[in-house]
Amino acid sequence: MNYQPHPAERIAHHTDRARFLDSLRPHFPEDAVLSEPEDLRPYECDGLSAYRVVPWLVVLPETVEQVLSVLRLCREHGVPVVARGAGTGLSGGALPVENGVLLSLAKFTRILAIDPDNRCARVQPGVRNLAVSEAAAPYGLYYAPDPSSQIACTIGGNVAENAGGVHCLKYGLTVHNLLAVQLATLDGELVTLGGGGLDAPGYDLLALVCGSEGLLGVIVEITVKLLPLPPRAQAVLAAFDSIETAGAAVAAVIAAGLLPAGLELMDNTTLRAVEAYLHPGYPEDAAALVLCELDGLPEQVAADIETAEAVLRAGGAVAVRRSQSEAERKSFWAGRKAAFPALGRLGFDYYCMDGTIPRRHLAGVLRRIGELSGEYGLGVANVFHAGDGNLHPLILYHANSADELARAEALGARILELCVEVGGTVTGEHGVGMEKLDPMCAQFSGPELARFHAVKQVFDPQGLLNPGKGVPSLNRCAEYGAIHIHGGCWPHPELERF
Amino acid sequence: MNYQPHPAERIAHHTDRARFLDSLRPHFPEDAVLSEPEDLRPYECDGLSAYRVVPWLVVLPETVEQVLSVLRLCREHGVPVVARGAGTGLSGGALPVENGVLLSLAKFTRILAIDPDNRCARVQPGVRNLAVSEAAAPYGLYYAPDPSSQIACTIGGNVAENAGGVHCLKYGLTVHNLLAVQLATLDGELVTLGGGGLDAPGYDLLALVCGSEGLLGVIVEITVKLLPLPPRAQAVLAAFDSIETAGAAVAAVIAAGLLPAGLELMDNTTLRAVEAYLHPGYPEDAAALVLCELDGLPEQVAADIETAEAVLRAGGAVAVRRSQSEAERKSFWAGRKAAFPALGRLGFDYYCMDGTIPRRHLAGVLRRIGELSGEYGLGVANVFHAGDGNLHPLILYHANSADELARAEALGARILELCVEVGGTVTGEHGVGMEKLDPMCAQFSGPELARFHAVKQVFDPQGLLNPGKGVPSLNRCAEYGAIHIHGGCWPHPELERF
Repeated sequence: MNYQPHPAERIAHHTDRARFLDSLRPHFPEDAVLSEPEDLRPYECDGLSAYRVVPWLVVLPETVEQVLSVLRLCREHGVPVVARGAGTGLSGGALPVENGVLLSLAKFTRILAIDPDNRCARVQPGVRNLAVSEAAAPYGLYYAPDPSSQIACTIGGNVAENAGGVHCLKYGLTVHNLLAVQLATLDGELVTLGGGGLDAPGYDLLALVCGSEGLLGVIVEITVKLLPLPPRAQAVLAAFDSIETAGAAVAAVIAAGLLPAGLELMDNTTLRAVEAYLHPGYPEDAAALVLCELDGLPEQVAADIETAEAVLRAGGAVAVRRSQSEAERKSFWAGRKAAFPALGRLGFDYYCMDGTIPRRHLAGVLRRIGELSGEYGLGVANVFHAGDGNLHPLILYHANSADELARAEALGARILELCVEVGGTVTGEHGVGMEKLDPMCAQFSGPELARFHAVKQVFDPQGLLNPGKGVPSLNRCAEYGAIHIHGGCWPHPELERF
Repeated sequence: MNYQPHPAERIAHHTDRARFLDSLRPHFPEDAVLSEPEDLRPYECDGLSAYRVVPWLVVLPETVEQVLSVLRLCREHGVPVVARGAGTGLSGGALPVENGVLLSLAKFTRILAIDPDNRCARVQPGVRNLAVSEAAAPYGLYYAPDPSSQIACTIGGNVAENAGGVHCLKYGLTVHNLLAVQLATLDGELVTLGGGGLDAPGYDLLALVCGSEGLLGVIVEITVKLLPLPPRAQAVLAAFDSIETAGAAVAAVIAAGLLPAGLELMDNTTLRAVEAYLHPGYPEDAAALVLCELDGLPEQVAADIETAEAVLRAGGAVAVRRSQSEAERKSFWAGRKAAFPALGRLGFDYYCMDGTIPRRHLAGVLRRIGELSGEYGLGVANVFHAGDGNLHPLILYHANSADELARAEALGARILELCVEVGGTVTGEHGVGMEKLDPMCAQFSGPELARFHAVKQVFDPQGLLNPGKGVPSLNRCAEYGAIHIHGGCWPHPELERF
């Protein structure tokens, strides 16, 4: 469907496209500026493919000077600009705007340095996530954050969305593995944020820019931390006869003092779809499976895996299987990693949510999602990063039914509100994009949103950088009903709050 | 000495003190507003005791509503306001301003909740750092960041300065262990930043506020992460016959793939002072000592300590001793932790620097500091968090000699410039305060400083919150000479930079 932005999030400008092209051309080789409809079409959506907008123009710079030129010209002509990495994002963060430039970083693919002494890598933003680990492997190092799309997604996009992955429970999100970026500003300046040390003085603009979804500037160089490859990894697969019991067992694993490298949960719908697709040997009669991986030194892994197995059994696991070889461990994961395509084979479209909740609410929220699934008359498959409470309910619907699409959107919004109600958040790792603007109104109060907008003004007073994404306008929230629920660790009403 | 702020960093206001007191009194019990000289004197400095300013007034609120009232009144009357925790900071961040309010958070001492399931603690800002770990201990949990002042310093001050400690190499700084804060703004509003999940959508204002040294608002509630207590810890002490060799060995420990819980270095001046004071059994003839602690499961610690010892020997250690008991491990640390008071006993005043550099430059920078010590005619003792490259050169001088003080300041500035030159930063964990405003001019370029000031405007357009701290005015940097050296991971000139 064609996405229509909220009127308050539209940028109107009266520059002529031909005139803008004339000002752009002298700075670029001919094939670096795309303006023909057939050349623009491939950029009309990102991984959130339900929404499509054909951009006005696509520019493919090769140098930082060219990026700065595009930004200066956009500012001068008042033209919106949306930066794009690999376009694998799931929240529409790289969705073009119809009267704006799509700025692709696809040519920024160089690894500039691997520094084993300081355990960091300096790369261009268009480098693929997995390529960093491949380049670091000869030194026994790797880059920890591993979104499911890591073969394709770029580090620049990872920083823009503060991407996570199955290992972020133990190793953190992108922001925890980031040392510095070079940011091209709309003024056409280049600023360095962060540095080689653990801390940098001044306000933490590095963290501010990480996850800012292209609203504050365009990242043109990135320095990430590298970690030593763990010498051993082993996984345990536990079957449960209810998803609530599985959710509670996940909370128990963490409460037992373990910090697994990955701690995933999938429900019966998901595991049957996966088994039919890849045959990893999952027990098809289980209501839910928990996949728990420990890594580290062999002795530590051996001890931890014993503890994990005992906690899972005590938590109600009806069957437990331990990987006996590296091949078997990988087959456990192959099933998990293929869950989305496997579910796609069921003949449904799916709408993937990304709410995060405090772990102790896992059982209750999973039960409530089951009830909501019945109320809205739509199937929901659950496959997610349970260890950090990061839910990925996949709402199953048929995109060619307007009614089902509307119900899917309503159910998705209800699930995210539920996450906020228990003290969670509307997005764990996929970003807000254009998809979660309404739920943001549920999570944040007026004074908080006002400060987001004021920070945006510092970097982009004209509102030209990725307009209509990331932070909802106050008008939108007023129309939405602006429920004021603050996030926080303990939503216990009985605990005193000021 | 009495501190004189830069003219550009002074706030002039024409409110009468008596009139301001009249507006303040109705909101507070009588003993919560101090205005007599003898009551104000104890607040005239923080841990950077060379600089003293008697505040106009001290206010000691007990409730968040009272904090909001103070801030509203300050804004209304245009009166500067400086927040203060325990006053243990080392960069003058809590130094009062002579015509402003000193807002003490000393009465905010309640631990509001310990949540073992979600491994977090919600506390008031005046809670002492160590008190959080003590409250978490019954659950087998603790709060990792441990500044040397942890018995006295408060969590609020830790957040304001983004404090570190001996364990931050492995466990991160305050920002890495923080989930949420409630911030009282100068508008008299309360905003919640962060939340229960790993990530929060919107711009990362939590990280922005962490380390902002009271320039953006007053923190009135804090939620921190808790970690499981490691089951085992063991330390190894290695003696070297040159400090450069010791520095290189530290870099080798990290390069070998170890992640010690602590990795400290002290030079001969320091270890002799400590030995004379506490007799921990340090070898007095060593040019430098490296103290390396490993923690985790017993099997892992045993394996890691073998590796560490081998790497330290291969790196030139002339003697190595391993702690054989918990008592011996603690005695190794007792010496390290008493280093500052031990050096104080030598009869010198000391001026403690806090630069951080990439680890592979440790040997070279330590050698250069030795040369500079000779050039400036002042002794320098080195005792520092070597593992994360966080230097703490203590410049030894006599405060009653104006000449020595001037030379100490000049030498300190030269050392921090040296840190910036090799790609490091002017403060690792102590903050900028009023002390490192000039070195900030060396580290940051004009566009970067301009963005810091613009962010400040968002939260405090009148510049009333902790004026003259944290970020230098552009006028100051222009006078300083505004050397534009960007921080970054690789300062190799041979590597292409854009």
